[in-house]
Amino acid sequence: MVDLRFSDAELAERREHVAEFVRSQVDAAGADGAVIGLSGGIDSATTASIAVDALGADAVRGLVLPGTVSSDENMSDAELIAEELGIAYDVVPIGGMVDAVLDGFPEIADDRVAVGNARARMRAVCGYLVANHDDRLVLGTGNRSEALVGYFTKYGDGAVDCHPIGNLYKVQVRQLARDLGVPEAIVEKPPTAGLWAGQTDEDELGLSYEELDPILALCVDGPLSPAATARELGVDREVVERVQTLHERSAHKRAMPPAPEQLN
Amino acid sequence: MVDLRFSDAELAERREHVAEFVRSQVDAAGADGAVIGLSGGIDSATTASIAVDALGADAVRGLVLPGTVSSDENMSDAELIAEELGIAYDVVPIGGMVDAVLDGFPEIADDRVAVGNARARMRAVCGYLVANHDDRLVLGTGNRSEALVGYFTKYGDGAVDCHPIGNLYKVQVRQLARDLGVPEAIVEKPPTAGLWAGQTDEDELGLSYEELDPILALCVDGPLSPAATARELGVDREVVERVQTLHERSAHKRAMPPAPEQLN
Repeated sequence: MVDLRFSDAELAERREHVAEFVRSQVDAAGADGAVIGLSGGIDSATTASIAVDALGADAVRGLVLPGTVSSDENMSDAELIAEELGIAYDVVPIGGMVDAVLDGFPEIADDRVAVGNARARMRAVCGYLVANHDDRLVLGTGNRSEALVGYFTKYGDGAVDCHPIGNLYKVQVRQLARDLGVPEAIVEKPPTAGLWAGQTDEDELGLSYEELDPILALCVDGPLSPAATARELGVDREVVERVQTLHERSAHKRAMPPAPEQLN
Repeated sequence: MVDLRFSDAELAERREHVAEFVRSQVDAAGADGAVIGLSGGIDSATTASIAVDALGADAVRGLVLPGTVSSDENMSDAELIAEELGIAYDVVPIGGMVDAVLDGFPEIADDRVAVGNARARMRAVCGYLVANHDDRLVLGTGNRSEALVGYFTKYGDGAVDCHPIGNLYKVQVRQLARDLGVPEAIVEKPPTAGLWAGQTDEDELGLSYEELDPILALCVDGPLSPAATARELGVDREVVERVQTLHERSAHKRAMPPAPEQLN
Protein backbone atom coordinates (compact mmCIF):
# COMPACT_ATOMS: atom_id res chain seq x y z
CA MET A 1 0.00 0.00 0.00
CA VAL A 2 0.91 3.60 -0.47
CA ASP A 3 0.43 5.93 2.44
CA LEU A 4 0.18 9.53 1.28
CA ARG A 5 -0.53 10.93 4.72
CA PHE A 6 1.91 13.42 6.20
CA SER A 7 3.72 12.86 9.48
CA ASP A 8 3.01 15.48 12.14
CA ALA A 9 6.24 17.29 11.28
CA GLU A 10 5.48 17.20 7.55
CA LEU A 11 1.98 18.46 8.18
CA ALA A 12 3.22 21.49 10.14
CA GLU A 13 5.78 22.20 7.44
CA ARG A 14 3.24 21.88 4.66
CA ARG A 15 0.76 24.13 6.41
CA GLU A 16 3.36 26.88 6.73
CA HIS A 17 4.51 26.26 3.15
CA VAL A 18 1.01 26.83 1.78
CA ALA A 19 0.50 29.94 3.92
CA GLU A 20 3.83 31.35 2.75
CA PHE A 21 2.80 30.65 -0.85
CA VAL A 22 -0.41 32.66 -0.37
CA ARG A 23 1.49 35.56 1.21
CA SER A 24 4.09 35.62 -1.54
CA GLN A 25 1.49 35.50 -4.31
CA VAL A 26 -0.47 38.42 -2.86
CA ASP A 27 2.73 40.39 -2.19
CA ALA A 28 4.18 39.79 -5.64
CA ALA A 29 0.96 41.00 -7.26
CA GLY A 30 0.85 44.06 -5.01
CA ALA A 31 -2.75 43.09 -4.25
CA ASP A 32 -4.80 44.18 -1.27
CA GLY A 33 -5.86 40.69 -0.24
CA ALA A 34 -7.74 37.69 -1.51
CA VAL A 35 -11.22 36.61 -2.51
CA ILE A 36 -12.34 32.98 -2.18
CA GLY A 37 -15.49 31.27 -3.35
CA LEU A 38 -16.91 29.31 -0.42
CA SER A 39 -18.95 26.26 -1.40
CA GLY A 40 -19.37 24.74 2.02
CA GLY A 41 -16.97 21.95 1.12
CA ILE A 42 -13.64 20.94 2.58
CA ASP A 43 -11.41 22.38 -0.16
CA SER A 44 -12.68 25.94 0.07
CA ALA A 45 -12.86 25.76 3.89
CA THR A 46 -9.23 24.65 4.02
CA THR A 47 -8.07 27.26 1.53
CA ALA A 48 -9.91 30.04 3.35
CA SER A 49 -8.53 28.94 6.69
CA ILE A 50 -4.96 28.99 5.42
CA ALA A 51 -5.54 32.34 3.72
CA VAL A 52 -6.63 33.78 7.06
CA ASP A 53 -3.48 32.33 8.67
CA ALA A 54 -1.39 33.88 5.92
CA LEU A 55 -3.01 37.27 5.42
CA GLY A 56 -5.21 37.90 8.43
CA ALA A 57 -9.01 37.79 8.43
CA ASP A 58 -9.33 41.42 7.33
CA ALA A 59 -7.58 40.69 4.02
CA VAL A 60 -9.81 37.77 3.03
CA ARG A 61 -13.28 38.17 1.49
CA GLY A 62 -15.55 35.17 1.02
CA LEU A 63 -18.09 34.76 -1.75
CA VAL A 64 -20.99 32.40 -1.18
CA LEU A 65 -22.64 31.89 -4.57
CA PRO A 66 -25.47 29.35 -4.33
CA GLY A 67 -26.68 28.05 -7.66
CA THR A 68 -29.29 25.41 -7.12
CA VAL A 69 -32.00 24.84 -4.55
CA SER A 70 -30.40 21.62 -3.37
CA SER A 71 -27.21 23.47 -2.51
CA ASP A 72 -28.91 25.35 0.32
CA GLU A 73 -27.41 23.04 2.90
CA ASN A 74 -23.89 23.49 1.53
CA MET A 75 -24.42 27.19 1.42
CA SER A 76 -25.30 27.46 5.05
CA ASP A 77 -22.13 25.47 5.73
CA ALA A 78 -20.29 28.06 3.64
CA GLU A 79 -21.67 30.89 5.74
CA LEU A 80 -20.80 28.97 8.90
CA ILE A 81 -17.19 28.70 7.75
CA ALA A 82 -17.00 32.41 6.96
CA GLU A 83 -18.45 33.25 10.36
CA GLU A 84 -16.02 30.96 12.16
CA LEU A 85 -13.06 32.47 10.33
CA GLY A 86 -14.32 35.98 10.99
CA ILE A 87 -14.04 37.09 7.39
CA ALA A 88 -16.34 39.43 5.48
CA TYR A 89 -18.50 37.60 2.98
CA ASP A 90 -21.34 38.12 0.54
CA VAL A 91 -24.14 35.69 -0.22
CA VAL A 92 -25.22 36.22 -3.83
CA PRO A 93 -27.40 33.62 -5.58
CA ILE A 94 -26.33 33.05 -9.18
CA GLY A 95 -29.52 31.40 -10.44
CA GLY A 96 -30.86 34.61 -12.01
CA MET A 97 -27.52 35.30 -13.71
CA VAL A 98 -27.42 31.85 -15.29
CA ASP A 99 -31.08 32.17 -16.29
CA ALA A 100 -30.24 35.46 -18.04
CA VAL A 101 -27.64 33.61 -20.11
CA LEU A 102 -30.01 30.76 -20.91
CA ASP A 103 -32.63 33.29 -22.04
CA GLY A 104 -30.21 34.00 -24.87
CA PHE A 105 -29.65 30.31 -25.63
CA PRO A 106 -33.00 28.63 -24.85
CA GLU A 107 -32.12 25.50 -26.85
CA ILE A 108 -29.33 24.74 -24.36
CA ALA A 109 -31.34 25.23 -21.16
CA ASP A 110 -31.89 21.48 -20.73
CA ASP A 111 -28.26 20.46 -21.28
CA ARG A 112 -27.33 19.55 -17.72
CA VAL A 113 -23.58 19.41 -18.21
CA ALA A 114 -23.30 22.58 -20.28
CA VAL A 115 -25.48 24.49 -17.83
CA GLY A 116 -23.63 23.05 -14.83
CA ASN A 117 -20.35 24.24 -16.28
CA ALA A 118 -21.91 27.65 -16.98
CA ARG A 119 -22.70 27.87 -13.26
CA ALA A 120 -19.04 27.30 -12.41
CA ARG A 121 -18.03 29.92 -14.98
CA MET A 122 -20.56 32.41 -13.65
CA ARG A 123 -18.96 32.01 -10.22
CA ALA A 124 -15.66 32.99 -11.84
CA VAL A 125 -17.29 36.09 -13.36
CA CYS A 126 -18.45 37.07 -9.86
CA GLY A 127 -15.11 36.29 -8.23
CA TYR A 128 -13.16 38.41 -10.69
CA LEU A 129 -15.69 41.23 -10.57
CA VAL A 130 -15.05 41.53 -6.84
CA ALA A 131 -11.31 40.89 -7.19
CA ASN A 132 -10.92 43.56 -9.90
CA HIS A 133 -12.94 46.07 -7.89
CA ASP A 134 -11.09 45.45 -4.61
CA ASP A 135 -7.67 44.78 -6.16
CA ARG A 136 -7.54 41.28 -4.71
CA LEU A 137 -6.28 37.94 -5.99
CA VAL A 138 -8.73 35.11 -6.64
CA LEU A 139 -7.59 32.06 -4.68
CA GLY A 140 -8.49 28.73 -6.21
CA THR A 141 -9.71 25.89 -4.08
CA GLY A 142 -8.81 22.95 -6.31
CA ASN A 143 -6.62 20.12 -5.06
CA ARG A 144 -4.07 17.99 -6.91
CA SER A 145 -6.36 14.99 -7.29
CA GLU A 146 -8.98 16.99 -9.17
CA ALA A 147 -6.36 18.76 -11.25
CA LEU A 148 -4.69 15.55 -12.41
CA VAL A 149 -7.90 13.94 -13.64
CA GLY A 150 -9.35 17.21 -14.96
CA TYR A 151 -12.24 17.13 -12.53
CA PHE A 152 -12.96 20.85 -12.68
CA THR A 153 -14.56 23.29 -15.11
CA LYS A 154 -12.14 24.88 -17.57
CA TYR A 155 -12.39 28.66 -17.02
CA GLY A 156 -14.86 27.98 -14.20
CA ASP A 157 -13.43 26.88 -10.85
CA GLY A 158 -10.16 26.62 -12.77
CA ALA A 159 -10.23 30.40 -13.43
CA VAL A 160 -8.16 31.67 -10.52
CA ASP A 161 -4.89 33.47 -9.83
CA CYS A 162 -3.28 30.62 -7.90
CA HIS A 163 -4.03 27.23 -6.35
CA PRO A 164 -2.88 27.18 -2.68
CA ILE A 165 -3.82 23.51 -2.14
CA GLY A 166 -3.20 22.59 -5.77
CA ASN A 167 -0.33 20.25 -4.95
CA LEU A 168 -2.08 18.32 -2.18
CA TYR A 169 -3.92 15.10 -2.86
CA LYS A 170 -7.45 15.03 -1.50
CA VAL A 171 -6.50 12.64 1.32
CA GLN A 172 -3.81 15.15 2.33
CA VAL A 173 -6.30 18.03 2.21
CA ARG A 174 -8.42 16.11 4.72
CA GLN A 175 -5.43 15.86 7.04
CA LEU A 176 -4.67 19.54 6.69
CA ALA A 177 -8.32 20.47 7.19
CA ARG A 178 -8.47 18.61 10.50
CA ASP A 179 -5.21 20.22 11.58
CA LEU A 180 -6.69 23.66 10.80
CA GLY A 181 -9.84 22.89 12.79
CA VAL A 182 -12.27 22.62 9.90
CA PRO A 183 -15.41 21.08 11.42
CA GLU A 184 -15.51 17.28 11.08
CA ALA A 185 -18.96 17.43 9.44
CA ILE A 186 -17.41 19.37 6.57
CA VAL A 187 -14.34 17.12 6.34
CA GLU A 188 -16.57 14.04 6.13
CA LYS A 189 -19.21 15.41 3.77
CA PRO A 190 -19.28 13.65 0.36
CA PRO A 191 -17.36 15.90 -2.06
CA THR A 192 -19.41 17.51 -4.83
CA ALA A 193 -18.63 19.94 -7.63
CA GLY A 194 -22.06 21.44 -6.96
CA LEU A 195 -22.94 21.87 -10.62
CA TRP A 196 -26.30 20.10 -10.34
CA ALA A 197 -28.47 18.49 -7.69
CA GLY A 198 -27.22 15.18 -6.32
CA GLN A 199 -23.82 15.35 -8.04
CA THR A 200 -20.93 13.74 -6.15
CA ASP A 201 -17.29 13.40 -7.15
CA GLU A 202 -17.27 9.71 -6.26
CA ASP A 203 -20.23 8.89 -8.52
CA GLU A 204 -18.80 10.82 -11.42
CA LEU A 205 -15.26 9.54 -11.11
CA GLY A 206 -16.40 6.02 -10.29
CA LEU A 207 -14.00 5.67 -7.39
CA SER A 208 -13.24 7.24 -4.02
CA TYR A 209 -10.31 9.54 -3.35
CA GLU A 210 -8.85 6.81 -1.12
CA GLU A 211 -8.71 4.67 -4.27
CA LEU A 212 -7.80 7.44 -6.71
CA ASP A 213 -4.97 9.17 -4.87
CA PRO A 214 -2.56 6.20 -4.64
CA ILE A 215 -3.09 5.52 -8.35
CA LEU A 216 -2.22 9.14 -9.14
CA ALA A 217 0.84 9.02 -6.89
CA LEU A 218 2.23 5.84 -8.43
CA CYS A 219 1.19 6.01 -12.06
CA VAL A 220 0.59 9.67 -12.97
CA ASP A 221 2.99 11.54 -10.67
CA GLY A 222 5.12 8.44 -10.24
CA PRO A 223 6.93 6.25 -12.76
CA LEU A 224 4.97 2.99 -12.46
CA SER A 225 3.13 1.41 -15.38
CA PRO A 226 -0.60 0.73 -15.07
CA ALA A 227 0.15 -2.98 -14.64
CA ALA A 228 2.70 -2.39 -11.89
CA THR A 229 0.39 0.12 -10.20
CA ALA A 230 -2.48 -2.38 -10.29
CA ARG A 231 -0.27 -5.07 -8.73
CA GLU A 232 1.13 -2.73 -6.08
CA LEU A 233 -2.32 -1.50 -5.03
CA GLY A 234 -4.29 -4.70 -5.61
CA VAL A 235 -6.75 -3.01 -7.94
CA ASP A 236 -7.92 -3.87 -11.45
CA ARG A 237 -5.63 -2.70 -14.21
CA GLU A 238 -8.67 -1.29 -16.04
CA VAL A 239 -9.24 1.10 -13.14
CA VAL A 240 -5.68 2.38 -13.36
CA GLU A 241 -5.95 2.75 -17.12
CA ARG A 242 -9.16 4.69 -16.75
CA VAL A 243 -7.43 7.14 -14.41
CA GLN A 244 -4.57 7.45 -16.86
CA THR A 245 -7.04 8.18 -19.66
CA LEU A 246 -8.78 10.85 -17.58
CA HIS A 247 -5.37 12.41 -17.00
CA GLU A 248 -4.36 12.38 -20.64
CA ARG A 249 -7.68 13.63 -22.00
CA SER A 250 -7.68 16.57 -19.59
CA ALA A 251 -4.18 17.80 -20.48
CA HIS A 252 -5.70 20.80 -22.26
CA LYS A 253 -7.20 21.94 -18.95
CA ARG A 254 -3.75 22.12 -17.32
CA ALA A 255 -2.01 24.07 -20.09
CA MET A 256 -2.30 27.50 -21.64
CA PRO A 257 -4.22 27.50 -24.94
CA PRO A 258 -1.71 26.85 -27.72
CA ALA A 259 -0.92 29.00 -30.74
CA PRO A 260 0.86 27.87 -33.89
CA GLU A 261 4.61 27.76 -33.47
CA GLN A 262 6.63 30.75 -34.67
CA LEU A 263 8.03 30.09 -38.14
CA ASN A 264 10.77 32.70 -38.09
CA MET B 1 13.79 50.04 -39.19
CA VAL B 2 12.31 46.64 -38.67
CA ASP B 3 9.93 45.33 -41.28
CA LEU B 4 7.70 42.61 -39.86
CA ARG B 5 5.65 42.17 -43.01
CA PHE B 6 5.67 38.81 -44.75
CA SER B 7 6.80 38.32 -48.35
CA ASP B 8 4.11 36.92 -50.65
CA ALA B 9 5.58 33.44 -50.28
CA GLU B 10 5.75 33.72 -46.49
CA LEU B 11 2.18 34.99 -46.36
CA ALA B 12 0.87 32.01 -48.32
CA GLU B 13 2.87 29.67 -46.12
CA ARG B 14 1.63 31.33 -42.93
CA ARG B 15 -1.96 31.26 -44.04
CA GLU B 16 -1.78 27.51 -44.66
CA HIS B 17 0.13 27.02 -41.39
CA VAL B 18 -2.63 28.69 -39.36
CA ALA B 19 -5.35 26.74 -41.17
CA GLU B 20 -3.51 23.48 -40.53
CA PHE B 21 -3.20 24.42 -36.86
CA VAL B 22 -6.97 24.91 -36.62
CA ARG B 23 -7.64 21.58 -38.32
CA SER B 24 -5.20 19.73 -36.10
CA GLN B 25 -6.60 21.26 -32.91
CA VAL B 26 -10.18 20.32 -33.78
CA ASP B 27 -9.14 16.83 -34.90
CA ALA B 28 -7.01 16.17 -31.81
CA ALA B 29 -9.91 17.13 -29.56
CA GLY B 30 -12.34 14.98 -31.54
CA ALA B 31 -14.58 18.03 -31.69
CA ASP B 32 -17.37 18.67 -34.18
CA GLY B 33 -16.15 22.10 -35.22
CA ALA B 34 -15.46 25.53 -33.81
CA VAL B 35 -17.23 28.49 -32.27
CA ILE B 36 -15.85 32.02 -32.63
CA GLY B 37 -16.95 35.25 -31.01
CA LEU B 38 -17.31 37.86 -33.74
CA SER B 39 -16.76 41.44 -32.60
CA GLY B 40 -16.76 43.10 -35.99
CA GLY B 41 -13.03 43.72 -35.71
CA ILE B 42 -10.15 42.50 -37.83
CA ASP B 43 -8.86 39.80 -35.46
CA SER B 44 -12.11 37.85 -35.23
CA ALA B 45 -12.83 38.36 -38.95
CA THR B 46 -9.40 36.96 -39.81
CA THR B 47 -9.71 34.03 -37.42
CA ALA B 48 -13.19 33.16 -38.69
CA SER B 49 -12.07 33.37 -42.30
CA ILE B 50 -9.16 31.01 -41.70
CA ALA B 51 -11.40 28.66 -39.72
CA VAL B 52 -13.74 28.45 -42.70
CA ASP B 53 -10.74 27.70 -44.95
CA ALA B 54 -9.63 25.01 -42.53
CA LEU B 55 -12.89 23.36 -41.51
CA GLY B 56 -15.51 24.45 -44.03
CA ALA B 57 -18.32 26.92 -43.34
CA ASP B 58 -20.62 24.23 -41.95
CA ALA B 59 -18.24 23.47 -39.09
CA VAL B 60 -17.91 27.08 -37.89
CA ARG B 61 -20.48 28.84 -35.71
CA GLY B 62 -20.24 32.55 -35.02
CA LEU B 63 -21.39 34.29 -31.86
CA VAL B 64 -22.21 37.98 -32.05
CA LEU B 65 -22.51 39.17 -28.46
CA PRO B 66 -23.11 42.93 -28.34
CA GLY B 67 -22.60 44.48 -24.94
CA THR B 68 -23.00 48.21 -25.15
CA VAL B 69 -25.18 50.50 -27.24
CA SER B 70 -22.16 52.07 -28.88
CA SER B 71 -21.02 48.72 -30.16
CA ASP B 72 -24.03 48.49 -32.49
CA GLU B 73 -21.94 49.51 -35.47
CA ASN B 74 -19.30 46.87 -34.76
CA MET B 75 -22.00 44.33 -34.29
CA SER B 76 -23.52 44.92 -37.67
CA ASP B 77 -19.99 44.54 -39.07
CA ALA B 78 -19.84 41.22 -37.20
CA GLU B 79 -23.05 40.05 -38.81
CA LEU B 80 -21.78 41.19 -42.19
CA ILE B 81 -18.67 39.06 -41.75
CA ALA B 82 -20.70 36.01 -40.77
CA GLU B 83 -22.94 36.50 -43.79
CA GLU B 84 -20.01 36.87 -46.16
CA LEU B 85 -18.38 33.72 -44.79
CA GLY B 86 -21.65 31.83 -45.00
CA ILE B 87 -21.47 30.55 -41.43
CA ALA B 88 -24.33 30.03 -39.00
CA TYR B 89 -24.36 32.66 -36.25
CA ASP B 90 -26.37 33.87 -33.31
CA VAL B 91 -26.84 37.47 -32.21
CA VAL B 92 -27.33 37.48 -28.45
CA PRO B 93 -27.03 40.75 -26.48
CA ILE B 94 -25.20 40.29 -23.19
CA GLY B 95 -26.36 43.49 -21.46
CA GLY B 96 -29.07 41.73 -19.47
CA MET B 97 -26.67 38.99 -18.38
CA VAL B 98 -24.15 41.51 -17.08
CA ASP B 99 -26.93 43.48 -15.40
CA ALA B 100 -28.04 40.30 -13.63
CA VAL B 101 -24.53 39.96 -12.19
CA LEU B 102 -24.39 43.62 -11.15
CA ASP B 103 -27.76 43.22 -9.40
CA GLY B 104 -25.85 40.96 -7.03
CA PHE B 105 -22.98 43.42 -6.63
CA PRO B 106 -24.58 46.88 -6.90
CA GLU B 107 -21.59 48.62 -5.29
CA ILE B 108 -19.46 47.62 -8.31
CA ALA B 109 -21.89 48.72 -11.04
CA ASP B 110 -20.02 52.02 -11.60
CA ASP B 111 -16.53 50.47 -11.79
CA ARG B 112 -15.92 50.83 -15.51
CA VAL B 113 -12.90 48.56 -15.72
CA ALA B 114 -14.30 45.78 -13.53
CA VAL B 115 -17.61 45.84 -15.42
CA GLY B 116 -15.85 45.98 -18.79
CA ASN B 117 -13.85 42.91 -17.89
CA ALA B 118 -17.04 41.20 -16.69
CA ARG B 119 -18.46 41.76 -20.20
CA ALA B 120 -15.49 39.97 -21.74
CA ARG B 121 -15.89 37.13 -19.23
CA MET B 122 -19.63 36.88 -19.90
CA ARG B 123 -18.79 36.40 -23.59
CA ALA B 124 -16.61 33.47 -22.53
CA VAL B 125 -19.50 31.99 -20.55
CA CYS B 126 -21.65 32.18 -23.70
CA GLY B 127 -18.93 30.80 -25.96
CA TYR B 128 -18.34 27.78 -23.77
CA LEU B 129 -22.05 27.18 -23.24
CA VAL B 130 -22.42 26.79 -27.00
CA ALA B 131 -19.13 24.93 -27.38
CA ASN B 132 -20.02 22.43 -24.63
CA HIS B 133 -23.49 21.88 -26.06
CA ASP B 134 -22.30 21.42 -29.66
CA ASP B 135 -19.02 19.68 -28.81
CA ARG B 136 -16.97 22.41 -30.48
CA LEU B 137 -13.69 24.12 -29.68
CA VAL B 138 -13.65 27.81 -28.77
CA LEU B 139 -11.23 29.58 -31.11
CA GLY B 140 -9.53 32.65 -29.64
CA THR B 141 -9.06 35.76 -31.70
CA GLY B 142 -6.13 37.33 -29.87
CA ASN B 143 -2.92 38.22 -31.68
CA ARG B 144 0.69 38.15 -30.48
CA SER B 145 0.92 41.91 -29.87
CA GLU B 146 -2.00 41.87 -27.41
CA ALA B 147 -0.73 38.71 -25.75
CA LEU B 148 2.76 40.07 -25.11
CA VAL B 149 1.56 43.25 -23.41
CA GLY B 150 -1.35 41.53 -21.65
CA TYR B 151 -3.94 43.58 -23.50
CA PHE B 152 -6.77 41.11 -22.98
CA THR B 153 -9.08 40.08 -20.17
CA LYS B 154 -7.80 37.17 -18.10
CA TYR B 155 -10.46 34.45 -18.33
CA GLY B 156 -12.43 36.70 -20.71
CA ASP B 157 -11.27 36.87 -24.31
CA GLY B 158 -8.27 34.89 -23.05
CA ALA B 159 -10.58 31.97 -22.14
CA VAL B 160 -10.34 29.87 -25.28
CA ASP B 161 -9.12 26.47 -26.45
CA CYS B 162 -6.46 27.80 -28.84
CA HIS B 163 -5.19 31.00 -30.44
CA PRO B 164 -4.96 30.55 -34.24
CA ILE B 165 -3.47 34.02 -34.84
CA GLY B 166 -1.75 34.11 -31.46
CA ASN B 167 1.72 34.18 -32.96
CA LEU B 168 1.12 36.96 -35.46
CA TYR B 169 1.87 40.58 -34.65
CA LYS B 170 -1.01 42.94 -35.36
CA VAL B 171 0.70 44.38 -38.44
CA GLN B 172 0.98 40.81 -39.78
CA VAL B 173 -2.70 40.13 -39.01
CA ARG B 174 -3.56 43.12 -41.20
CA GLN B 175 -1.56 41.60 -44.05
CA LEU B 176 -3.23 38.23 -43.61
CA ALA B 177 -6.68 39.84 -43.36
CA ARG B 178 -6.22 41.59 -46.70
CA ASP B 179 -4.98 38.38 -48.26
CA LEU B 180 -8.11 36.59 -47.01
CA GLY B 181 -10.36 39.28 -48.43
CA VAL B 182 -11.50 40.82 -45.14
CA PRO B 183 -13.19 44.11 -46.15
CA GLU B 184 -10.83 47.08 -46.06
CA ALA B 185 -13.23 49.03 -43.80
CA ILE B 186 -12.73 46.35 -41.15
CA VAL B 187 -8.97 46.15 -41.63
CA GLU B 188 -8.67 49.92 -41.22
CA LYS B 189 -11.09 50.38 -38.32
CA PRO B 190 -9.41 51.54 -35.08
CA PRO B 191 -8.94 48.42 -32.93
CA THR B 192 -10.99 48.28 -29.73
CA ALA B 193 -11.41 45.72 -26.97
CA GLY B 194 -15.08 46.75 -26.90
CA LEU B 195 -15.33 46.73 -23.11
CA TRP B 196 -16.82 50.23 -22.90
CA ALA B 197 -17.93 53.02 -25.22
CA GLY B 198 -15.15 54.88 -27.01
CA GLN B 199 -12.38 52.52 -25.91
CA THR B 200 -9.53 52.07 -28.41
CA ASP B 201 -6.39 49.99 -28.12
CA GLU B 202 -4.23 52.89 -29.25
CA ASP B 203 -5.53 55.25 -26.53
CA GLU B 204 -5.14 52.66 -23.81
CA LEU B 205 -1.69 51.45 -24.85
CA GLY B 206 -0.51 54.96 -25.67
CA LEU B 207 1.00 53.91 -28.98
CA SER B 208 -0.03 52.45 -32.32
CA TYR B 209 0.62 48.85 -33.37
CA GLU B 210 3.02 50.20 -36.00
CA GLU B 211 5.04 51.57 -33.09
CA LEU B 212 4.44 48.69 -30.68
CA ASP B 213 5.17 45.69 -32.89
CA PRO B 214 8.81 46.51 -33.77
CA ILE B 215 9.50 47.13 -30.06
CA LEU B 216 8.05 43.71 -29.22
CA ALA B 217 10.02 42.03 -31.99
CA LEU B 218 13.36 43.54 -30.95
CA CYS B 219 13.13 43.82 -27.17
CA VAL B 220 10.54 41.28 -25.93
CA ASP B 221 10.77 38.47 -28.51
CA GLY B 222 14.24 39.59 -29.52
CA PRO B 223 17.46 39.99 -27.54
CA LEU B 224 17.97 43.76 -27.69
CA SER B 225 18.12 45.95 -24.60
CA PRO B 226 15.67 48.85 -24.25
CA ALA B 227 18.49 51.28 -25.05
CA ALA B 228 19.53 49.40 -28.18
CA THR B 229 15.89 49.02 -29.25
CA ALA B 230 15.30 52.74 -28.80
CA ARG B 231 18.38 53.55 -30.91
CA GLU B 232 17.48 51.04 -33.61
CA LEU B 233 13.92 52.31 -33.93
CA GLY B 234 14.54 55.98 -33.20
CA VAL B 235 12.03 56.06 -30.34
CA ASP B 236 12.34 57.24 -26.75
CA ARG B 237 13.84 54.73 -24.39
CA GLU B 238 10.98 55.41 -21.95
CA VAL B 239 8.52 54.10 -24.52
CA VAL B 240 10.46 50.85 -24.87
CA GLU B 241 10.69 50.49 -21.12
CA ARG B 242 6.98 51.02 -20.76
CA VAL B 243 6.33 48.19 -23.21
CA GLN B 244 8.75 46.00 -21.31
CA THR B 245 6.94 46.79 -18.07
CA LEU B 246 3.56 45.95 -19.61
CA HIS B 247 5.05 42.63 -20.70
CA GLU B 248 6.51 41.78 -17.31
CA ARG B 249 3.46 42.82 -15.29
CA SER B 250 1.17 40.69 -17.47
CA ALA B 251 3.22 37.49 -17.16
CA HIS B 252 0.50 35.99 -14.93
CA LYS B 253 -1.96 36.26 -17.84
CA ARG B 254 0.24 34.08 -20.05
CA ALA B 255 0.84 31.29 -17.52
CA MET B 256 -1.24 28.70 -15.73
CA PRO B 257 -2.10 29.69 -12.15
CA PRO B 258 0.72 28.44 -9.93
CA ALA B 259 0.51 26.08 -6.96
CA PRO B 260 3.15 25.64 -4.26
CA GLU B 261 5.99 23.39 -5.39
CA GLN B 262 5.83 19.72 -4.41
CA LEU B 263 7.92 19.11 -1.30
CA ASN B 264 8.30 15.36 -1.67
